[in-house]
Amino acid sequence: MGKDSRFLAGFDLGGTKMMAGVLNDKMEVLSRSKKKTRGKSEEGDTFKRIADCIRDACKEANVDPKDLAGIGVGSPGPLDPVTGVIGETVNLPTDLREFPLKARLEKEFGCPAEVDNDVNMGTLGEFAFGAAKKGRNVLGVFPGTGIGGGLIIEGQLFRGSSGAAGEVGHVVMDPAGPRCGCGKRGCLEAYASRLAIVARALVLLLRGEAPALAKEVGLNPGDIKSSALARAIEGGDKLLEEAIRETAFRVDTVIGSLINVISPDTVVLGGGLVEAMPALYVEEVTAGAKKAALGFLFKDVRIVTAKLGDDAVMMGAASLIATALAAKEKPKDKS
Amino acid sequence: MGKDSRFLAGFDLGGTKMMAGVLNDKMEVLSRSKKKTRGKSEEGDTFKRIADCIRDACKEANVDPKDLAGIGVGSPGPLDPVTGVIGETVNLPTDLREFPLKARLEKEFGCPAEVDNDVNMGTLGEFAFGAAKKGRNVLGVFPGTGIGGGLIIEGQLFRGSSGAAGEVGHVVMDPAGPRCGCGKRGCLEAYASRLAIVARALVLLLRGEAPALAKEVGLNPGDIKSSALARAIEGGDKLLEEAIRETAFRVDTVIGSLINVISPDTVVLGGGLVEAMPALYVEEVTAGAKKAALGFLFKDVRIVTAKLGDDAVMMGAASLIATALAAKEKPKDKS
Repeated sequence: MGKDSRFLAGFDLGGTKMMAGVLNDKMEVLSRSKKKTRGKSEEGDTFKRIADCIRDACKEANVDPKDLAGIGVGSPGPLDPVTGVIGETVNLPTDLREFPLKARLEKEFGCPAEVDNDVNMGTLGEFAFGAAKKGRNVLGVFPGTGIGGGLIIEGQLFRGSSGAAGEVGHVVMDPAGPRCGCGKRGCLEAYASRLAIVARALVLLLRGEAPALAKEVGLNPGDIKSSALARAIEGGDKLLEEAIRETAFRVDTVIGSLINVISPDTVVLGGGLVEAMPALYVEEVTAGAKKAALGFLFKDVRIVTAKLGDDAVMMGAASLIATALAAKEKPKDKS
Repeated sequence: MGKDSRFLAGFDLGGTKMMAGVLNDKMEVLSRSKKKTRGKSEEGDTFKRIADCIRDACKEANVDPKDLAGIGVGSPGPLDPVTGVIGETVNLPTDLREFPLKARLEKEFGCPAEVDNDVNMGTLGEFAFGAAKKGRNVLGVFPGTGIGGGLIIEGQLFRGSSGAAGEVGHVVMDPAGPRCGCGKRGCLEAYASRLAIVARALVLLLRGEAPALAKEVGLNPGDIKSSALARAIEGGDKLLEEAIRETAFRVDTVIGSLINVISPDTVVLGGGLVEAMPALYVEEVTAGAKKAALGFLFKDVRIVTAKLGDDAVMMGAASLIATALAAKEKPKDKS
């Protein structure tokens, strides 16, 4: 089979695990392959693991890696989506910092590659294949360890002039507020990320006010994952639920404000916290955003949860490379 | 001369005054004509005044109104930019509410017309001809009696899915904050519009702490215009200056947050307050936005003041109709 066979690889490069998927020309996922991002030797061989992971997915799909028409990658930022060079990304092994991932993949597999940040790819995945499929202007918001955001504007992924638009987690709610990981004060992330929730949960644990959570995690903050929080709420921890609803309300206020400025037709919520507690988040976001948004801007907005789960970034990355390949093939006047 | 003569009219429909301009095919302004929006009889003849104002501008430019190729209008919203129907706009005479302005102008002048909101047209004017000419992604922010905003995305006016994107004044800073004119709480406008500044200035006047402003306006809040505030600051009212800088700082926080989400290359500041105190606003906005925006998103953003003054809306409206006419003429594959 030649390159016209149109198999694509989508790749989700995460801080702890990586996943490759192989798709056919109907954008159906034929196979998936997963690996831990960090090997035993810890550093130095991460690119080899990435390439092996892609080859494993090809094998699983009965596709010769030579028949890949293109590879799309979603990676934690900062990175340069034009050159495909990873930046000083704290969440990845050190051998990937300042690493020319696009160029290395193109050399390794002999086909075009594109690299963009994982939140953009998650938003694009949900737009192309998932919960935001009917949208044209889409705001993706992903509360987890941080709070990421992505934008689809008039049917296209929008990166802004810097290439890094969508930093919803760094909308400032109060310039005198708590310090954020970015060094500024009062960012949404400082109020409503999983870390902020962990801090509030710990206070409840120390006071003995979250007994169900205590059964899950003892007093170990490292164990307070989104899923443990969800189970503790189901187990009856009312004050914990209240605390999480309060942080969700912060997210909603920002979403409502952004509805006023950007006027999307669809808001898609994803990320670890939302996946663990979808009903709570959709409830709070719908109520809170309605309160913050102007009526005539809010009335036709759909607020939905991500549908693709672990596949979102991988499938968004496959959509990215598919679009890039299509743009290369079409004559200029169709661009 | 036939319709290929390519004269255009731009029209700025304001709450107190209206202005028509006639432009040639090089988008040079040949003439301007102004009228008060409300006539002696107050209501019922506003459309006639609009048409007369356009004809006056044509006469002044030696252009037969029959030779107009198109008319663009900027009007206070809400309005529907697709149908060109004015909504329940409180700032216009009542006979223009629910008024099909686009259709009536097309019938009256026998040429296509487009109607969009004044802040969008101001942003478009500065993008096409003024301070944001070099930009591709532009955020326009216009603090005045309200705080309006406009967006240019990838070189195109962006209206969002509702047609009414850009409501920067209704970004919520604190859901428990002061009540805004829109009915919500804690909107930027509630902290930083001219009305909010007037309220703070009045407190200073009542305390005898703004002597220069007292000379300008006595105790009459209706006289506290942007220009009076600017003169009072020049006259030495330090506490007044501090109050205005504090409100400007709120505007900056929102601009910084929006830089994080939208990543524009240019922020253009206009409106009554900025025109009266350009140095103060640019200073505060640059400092404040730098504080709120992430470094890698802020570093290449240009923050500039509007250049076109009273011409911005009229010229933006002319650009709107020029673009609409060009889109109609070009074959589909160039769209």
